[in-house]
Amino acid sequence: MMTLSSAGVLHSEPGALQLAQAIAGTEGVELTGVYAHCGNTYSCKGAEQIQAVAKETTNFVLDFMEKLRAVDITCKSSIGSTPSCSHPVKDMSKLDEVHPGNYVFYDVQQSTIGSCCLDDVAVRVLTRVIGHCPHRNQLLIDCGWSGISLDGAGKLPTGYAVIEGHPNLKLLSMTQEHGRVEPISGSLDYSKYPLGSLLTLIPYHSCATTMMHPVYHVHSGGHLLGKWTPTRGW
Amino acid sequence: MMTLSSAGVLHSEPGALQLAQAIAGTEGVELTGVYAHCGNTYSCKGAEQIQAVAKETTNFVLDFMEKLRAVDITCKSSIGSTPSCSHPVKDMSKLDEVHPGNYVFYDVQQSTIGSCCLDDVAVRVLTRVIGHCPHRNQLLIDCGWSGISLDGAGKLPTGYAVIEGHPNLKLLSMTQEHGRVEPISGSLDYSKYPLGSLLTLIPYHSCATTMMHPVYHVHSGGHLLGKWTPTRGW
Repeated sequence: MMTLSSAGVLHSEPGALQLAQAIAGTEGVELTGVYAHCGNTYSCKGAEQIQAVAKETTNFVLDFMEKLRAVDITCKSSIGSTPSCSHPVKDMSKLDEVHPGNYVFYDVQQSTIGSCCLDDVAVRVLTRVIGHCPHRNQLLIDCGWSGISLDGAGKLPTGYAVIEGHPNLKLLSMTQEHGRVEPISGSLDYSKYPLGSLLTLIPYHSCATTMMHPVYHVHSGGHLLGKWTPTRGW
Repeated sequence: MMTLSSAGVLHSEPGALQLAQAIAGTEGVELTGVYAHCGNTYSCKGAEQIQAVAKETTNFVLDFMEKLRAVDITCKSSIGSTPSCSHPVKDMSKLDEVHPGNYVFYDVQQSTIGSCCLDDVAVRVLTRVIGHCPHRNQLLIDCGWSGISLDGAGKLPTGYAVIEGHPNLKLLSMTQEHGRVEPISGSLDYSKYPLGSLLTLIPYHSCATTMMHPVYHVHSGGHLLGKWTPTRGW
């Protein structure tokens, strides 16, 4: 069962219980759990709205678990979505598990929903200034969509990412290997961005960005602590 | 020098020769070559238009090489873009090298430009039918944008990919892990697409798709010949 519109049977429909019974009653198959991804938290703004959805989703799942128990089916209960797990409600403690999404990284999108603030975001893509284009009032950087993804479609006021420490810069567009950076207003002071200097991109969507990289460099306090190789699942 | 609008100095501007001279005259730095990416081939349709651009680009580069020789600078010459290298013109043999882009795979985009035909495309993403959604006249598949990318923006008549052997199917939309497939016209015959059956996606843009996968399975005549691990460059 999923409450996300992508798949599954709605908890409120008779088919949901029938499906659970069919699975549980099939030899060689085990019904391990009920999971709801409350994707509707993505249209929330702020903790209050997020918690209202988290509460509703939790109640739906717990109610459905009651229906299962009434027909002698026991299995695990779980809900997910980064926003709901970032602002948990009390009843979520009655669930067996939660799927807290990309909270390990967070991203600019989550900060716009209100799951976190921008300071909580723990993922960056480093890129170098590789060109000055004064005829276009732009910088060229060596990060394109194969480094940070097209997710977010450039709809942030700062384009495809937030450029840390430079609130007036916008990642306007990208080719596969390059990005074009321009000021939101005014003229670029090229002396501030010499060729070879580093810019630090905070991604719009960390899931999409981290998909692009086979290794993550983990650091704290300026020290490299290790390299993480993500499991891709295929 | 690049003729692509993303970067560089136009070959026709005095600054181009001055830049080459400045590089060649700097101690510890070697000018290795002149490269032009004729990205304007991407707006072509068919071999004739592509060859016109390939010829123009080649001439620009060869003319610039003459200017370099006149000031005693020697270096390599090269042009790129998948379309131009797919339909080479005679004068390209005077270049030192070409950068033939994604010809090793090709993709649906290249077939729409006329670089290749759809039968030439050598990359596929396999996905399974994991859901029947008769209330939406859709199939659910286990390939989302983290398997094939959002490149192409779904603008093909068949959506985000071509589904091999099923010209009436459209990859309508994707979440991170799932895709929604529906018929271009008519009702889905679900008996043709049992749960667990494989569908074969031909990607719109092979560069973007192959970025998503850490390993490629290479096969011929139904036999797996090896696994390729791509070099990411970072």
